[in-house]
Amino acid sequence: MAGSDFGSIFKITTWGESHGAGIGVVVDGCPAGLPLSQEDIQRFLDRRRPGQSPFSTPRKEADRAQILSGVFEGKTTGTPISILVKNENQQSRDYSEIASYYRPGHADYTFDAKYGFRDYRGGGRSSGRETIGRVAGGAVASLLLSRLGIEITAYTKTIGPVCCDMDRFSQEEISRNPVCMPDAAAAKKAEEYLKECMKAQNSCGGIVECVITGVPAGIGDPVFEKLDANLAKAIFSIGAVKGFEIGEGFEAAALTGLENNDSFCAGPFGQITKETNHAGGILGGISDGCPIIFRAAFKPTPSIAAPQKTVKKDGTPITVSIKGRHDPIIVPRGVVVVESMAALTLADMMLANMGTRLSSIEDFYRR
Amino acid sequence: MAGSDFGSIFKITTWGESHGAGIGVVVDGCPAGLPLSQEDIQRFLDRRRPGQSPFSTPRKEADRAQILSGVFEGKTTGTPISILVKNENQQSRDYSEIASYYRPGHADYTFDAKYGFRDYRGGGRSSGRETIGRVAGGAVASLLLSRLGIEITAYTKTIGPVCCDMDRFSQEEISRNPVCMPDAAAAKKAEEYLKECMKAQNSCGGIVECVITGVPAGIGDPVFEKLDANLAKAIFSIGAVKGFEIGEGFEAAALTGLENNDSFCAGPFGQITKETNHAGGILGGISDGCPIIFRAAFKPTPSIAAPQKTVKKDGTPITVSIKGRHDPIIVPRGVVVVESMAALTLADMMLANMGTRLSSIEDFYRR
Amino acid sequence: MAGSDFGSIFKITTWGESHGAGIGVVVDGCPAGLPLSQEDIQRFLDRRRPGQSPFSTPRKEADRAQILSGVFEGKTTGTPISILVKNENQQSRDYSEIASYYRPGHADYTFDAKYGFRDYRGGGRSSGRETIGRVAGGAVASLLLSRLGIEITAYTKTIGPVCCDMDRFSQEEISRNPVCMPDAAAAKKAEEYLKECMKAQNSCGGIVECVITGVPAGIGDPVFEKLDANLAKAIFSIGAVKGFEIGEGFEAAALTGLENNDSFCAGPFGQITKETNHAGGILGGISDGCPIIFRAAFKPTPSIAAPQKTVKKDGTPITVSIKGRHDPIIVPRGVVVVESMAALTLADMMLANMGTRLSSIEDFYRR
Amino acid sequence: MAGSDFGSIFKITTWGESHGAGIGVVVDGCPAGLPLSQEDIQRFLDRRRPGQSPFSTPRKEADRAQILSGVFEGKTTGTPISILVKNENQQSRDYSEIASYYRPGHADYTFDAKYGFRDYRGGGRSSGRETIGRVAGGAVASLLLSRLGIEITAYTKTIGPVCCDMDRFSQEEISRNPVCMPDAAAAKKAEEYLKECMKAQNSCGGIVECVITGVPAGIGDPVFEKLDANLAKAIFSIGAVKGFEIGEGFEAAALTGLENNDSFCAGPFGQITKETNHAGGILGGISDGCPIIFRAAFKPTPSIAAPQKTVKKDGTPITVSIKGRHDPIIVPRGVVVVESMAALTLADMMLANMGTRLSSIEDFYRR
Repeated sequence: MAGSDFGSIFKITTWGESHGAGIGVVVDGCPAGLPLSQEDIQRFLDRRRPGQSPFSTPRKEADRAQILSGVFEGKTTGTPISILVKNENQQSRDYSEIASYYRPGHADYTFDAKYGFRDYRGGGRSSGRETIGRVAGGAVASLLLSRLGIEITAYTKTIGPVCCDMDRFSQEEISRNPVCMPDAAAAKKAEEYLKECMKAQNSCGGIVECVITGVPAGIGDPVFEKLDANLAKAIFSIGAVKGFEIGEGFEAAALTGLENNDSFCAGPFGQITKETNHAGGILGGISDGCPIIFRAAFKPTPSIAAPQKTVKKDGTPITVSIKGRHDPIIVPRGVVVVESMAALTLADMMLANMGTRLSSIEDFYRR
Repeated sequence: MAGSDFGSIFKITTWGESHGAGIGVVVDGCPAGLPLSQEDIQRFLDRRRPGQSPFSTPRKEADRAQILSGVFEGKTTGTPISILVKNENQQSRDYSEIASYYRPGHADYTFDAKYGFRDYRGGGRSSGRETIGRVAGGAVASLLLSRLGIEITAYTKTIGPVCCDMDRFSQEEISRNPVCMPDAAAAKKAEEYLKECMKAQNSCGGIVECVITGVPAGIGDPVFEKLDANLAKAIFSIGAVKGFEIGEGFEAAALTGLENNDSFCAGPFGQITKETNHAGGILGGISDGCPIIFRAAFKPTPSIAAPQKTVKKDGTPITVSIKGRHDPIIVPRGVVVVESMAALTLADMMLANMGTRLSSIEDFYRR
Repeated sequence: MAGSDFGSIFKITTWGESHGAGIGVVVDGCPAGLPLSQEDIQRFLDRRRPGQSPFSTPRKEADRAQILSGVFEGKTTGTPISILVKNENQQSRDYSEIASYYRPGHADYTFDAKYGFRDYRGGGRSSGRETIGRVAGGAVASLLLSRLGIEITAYTKTIGPVCCDMDRFSQEEISRNPVCMPDAAAAKKAEEYLKECMKAQNSCGGIVECVITGVPAGIGDPVFEKLDANLAKAIFSIGAVKGFEIGEGFEAAALTGLENNDSFCAGPFGQITKETNHAGGILGGISDGCPIIFRAAFKPTPSIAAPQKTVKKDGTPITVSIKGRHDPIIVPRGVVVVESMAALTLADMMLANMGTRLSSIEDFYRR
Repeated sequence: MAGSDFGSIFKITTWGESHGAGIGVVVDGCPAGLPLSQEDIQRFLDRRRPGQSPFSTPRKEADRAQILSGVFEGKTTGTPISILVKNENQQSRDYSEIASYYRPGHADYTFDAKYGFRDYRGGGRSSGRETIGRVAGGAVASLLLSRLGIEITAYTKTIGPVCCDMDRFSQEEISRNPVCMPDAAAAKKAEEYLKECMKAQNSCGGIVECVITGVPAGIGDPVFEKLDANLAKAIFSIGAVKGFEIGEGFEAAALTGLENNDSFCAGPFGQITKETNHAGGILGGISDGCPIIFRAAFKPTPSIAAPQKTVKKDGTPITVSIKGRHDPIIVPRGVVVVESMAALTLADMMLANMGTRLSSIEDFYRR
């Protein structure tokens, strides 16, 4: 099945394996007239690039984005934008051994079960490098959204047992520490914890939180294409995500109606708003004008050097120790992927929303 | 935007408002030859019908399913199956007042923000009755899946602070108590808690857990159409759901790789399986042959009789008390909706999977 | 495969068989605020209703449209509009015999080949009654388009050997004669020809032409979603259509570039237009502001009373004479179906077009 | 709107402009295990390459296909296949002048009307080079189909006034003459006619016919996703196509039912077949097991050196003479594009068909 595209009006199609010629994305449906350069995309890609901290793999991946189509004289033309990132630092010999067995926590076995065989080099299509296409596409979506006054900010909320204190939240801090936490003290502790994990040849998980501001009320559809449902799919399509929640999320299950309901009130400019935001900015699948807040749980990196039991393709039990260059945690590099998937979802739904009312359509075509 | 369909190969389109002529679904893409009767659908609908316990609204909704097309001589023909449930017990006068203000926790405001006005009677399209179409469609999907050896079981895991003890799990118990818990002792406590909520004119939330057995390894797609991503969207498209997690879910964020990874091993029949199932039956977006286990967090019913602050359409603050017939909790009636959405997702992905390997296609067309 | 829907933003899903409980359509994605009544739909349905002329089957099909959802206080709400037409005059006994053999020119054999069996009563899903859902949906699309100044007019251009003289074109004449020709003299001749066909227990084909005015330049997409490509699919999805052409159509293959190219010129209001319209209003898949003109070739009605050779399901040769109530020609009743499919296509593409330019999106969201 | 993909299960997404960095396609949904090399794709691309005959532009475009992903150890992996063809011989200076005016018969004006501006170099996205992506994708689809016994052959049927005599049909002849006609005598005449056109600084149109053999009965859907409707869209999405017909096509409109109906009969191996094939291999939108035969009308190349009237962007009238390297006819190079689009359509519908019957699905999953 064709399953490599995301979105319907603003759509991306990604391709590429860890150890093939490259990784890429085709962004289709981007409106004409958006200023776009390779640097705009590179800024996003650089945030997911490895080799920038002691907790990310020391691979040197330049990951340079090339725009091959869809931009003319510095602006998008409305036709598909093809973006290519060549694979340059792949070392296939590192991975030759894993062809014969199934790594715990990886998609090796399920790929074989589905397709009959797999490109085993570096995880192939299920490698973390697959997210390059998402981030390049997300960069374009983010630029579009920022033209509409929408900003998306994600950060690490927890790493293993270490949780940020939101009273110490600092937006600037997010890009200052290698774990992308908005709380410098928590970041310190998280770094300590990660060093222990690495020493133990182990890894750990964490939670990313994402806040989206500037979304007008009325975005999203009331039944299957709920804005939160599409965000859920978008975020869950990122490898390693095991949970998604919005607003109070799982906590809401333990609350009462009186505790969880947000009272509507008149805002400072006479507009209608809410006194609290337990809902996380979405009611009945449609944005309510308050900030959209969601969280994603990432599992620990499955590739660890500590010995683990598993089987060969023929079922023979063996003990393996995954060598190579692996992050002890996925979360900090996942932050920009979360932002990208949120941007892609929102860009698509903002465009889809334009034909909702007859009066808007009449206005549009009468100009 | 057209957002009332779900699925791509096995697809449903739902329609209908709480107080219109009826609610319905068109099931398109169901394979030809599946035995199907109105009773098959009714069995599912009866599980979501209100008026069956002290904790569900005392409305008497017969909710009789009529099959209008797509079945001939007791079997599906491969053409669309139209199912109609007439609205019969709607009392529009109950709802006339709410036209003027925005109920906290409901989609009243967001519908107005999106469409400019709304069918305010009983919540209109965002009413819980909208799930009738999902359940009728889910009944067809479940019948198809059971022909392939797949069974889906959902149940209430928590209600407010009350959580089932899974050591006391009993499948039969689920349908015996009014809260659909698999643990009789917890069910008792939950009933007590719900009575307190009702006395306080309040409501509460809860968590539904769902287990799917019999899914072969290899179902789902590795990138955007991950099986868990599609389940996440399916479940999040149910009104009131605020969180979704699979396997260890949010707990995985606090685990280490050694704790969370599942070792592969040889199963009793020589097949490859896993020693544990922290992953919840899906690796890299593709089923691994183990049971699929996920959870959905439902917020408390927003309609409560206790007084709440809100605003009128023009922003004037008022205090309201939502009258009418409302469940103090959504969860027990949501159980069959969760099963239905899981069945629809899985039926679609099982069909999508058939064209994955050249050898299967050659076999199929050479017969 | 789910194949019963058409469109992506403005979308219809049709269902129903000739002899089931009814025929229906769900219109999803219609903007909120469009005034819509059952009478609006009925007017379109009445144009395809049989029993109105000597050349249409004498069946008395009331074909009353009921709107079951999506309209509140006389206006569309933006949620799906479910329209039901009950089957009331079906006589299953007429069709019992045809269960055993394959009618020439019909889909009996191909349905069996695809699904393994078929609802043989009156053609089942491949009956002409299937178009009721298209016409009901097309009525909604046409209403929307007329709000935008777009009018669609189809008429019979040829019947068998009889062709309209376009110099005698009269819009009013189309609804005055039973063959829907805009040329009264040709209509007379066509009626004579049809009487001969009926006497000979035979049938004949014809060509429908359709003109769409008021479409602004810029609608349609340059590659796969060309406006003409989508019209081609829409029209070819009508049973019995064997050819589709736009502008000069097949004639263009015999022309030179100098003959076929349309010179651009300045129009009366300074706008850019074309001196001629060989292109039929579309260049590079995108509307150019001139009238869109296309033609569809309909094959002769396959159901004829004259004896024909065919086979039983087991291959035994037999001679059959198709009894029952059949039109000697499909074309006049097909005229409104052509208009409907054109309206559905155009409504969808008009909505899709709204997100084409960044400046429009900025304007839309800044209001 | 995203409109650069085609197909739903076997899907291509194309990108690229005439004078950008390159042209490409992502083929998604191709089954795993299909042997595929760059040479396989090159063979198809070479058939549409210019510079091979006196009637195609003398540009030297190497058009070398590179496979960037989705193939491992010589076989498709089931993940997206990205194919890149770099633009190497583009001369932007040739096109600088046309930025200021609208070429007759081209999409210059409609692009401006839609997007507000355009990449005017060599036609940008509406250039004939856009078909490179289709042909590369079509090569993959054709390889898949040939594994299922399906062969697609297209050829030039007419060029201007010259029409092939089908009694002289020779499959080998198609690739022997520069106009791709299966009749050597007609090819000679067509070459003479083309030379005259070139001398007159003019161009001409023609008709391509396509025959598909080996398609089993039962492929296609009965309503909107008719096999012929999808072929119509596929072929009409090729720039310059103005007409599409299947079987008798427009001729059917002048026939009677007795003339046009095909009698079913028992075939040599006891299978059911038809005595004639007026239907062109499709009944009710579903293949009937006979060869599928369709025709496409191509308009004359709009780029001609003879002087033509048109306007500048501001409406000022001018006379232009299109210089540069242009084919006097599109048809011979369009032959492989027609085959490609037919292959893409059919591959998609063959895969979609696999889930049609419950019994097949049960067989598939019980193995």
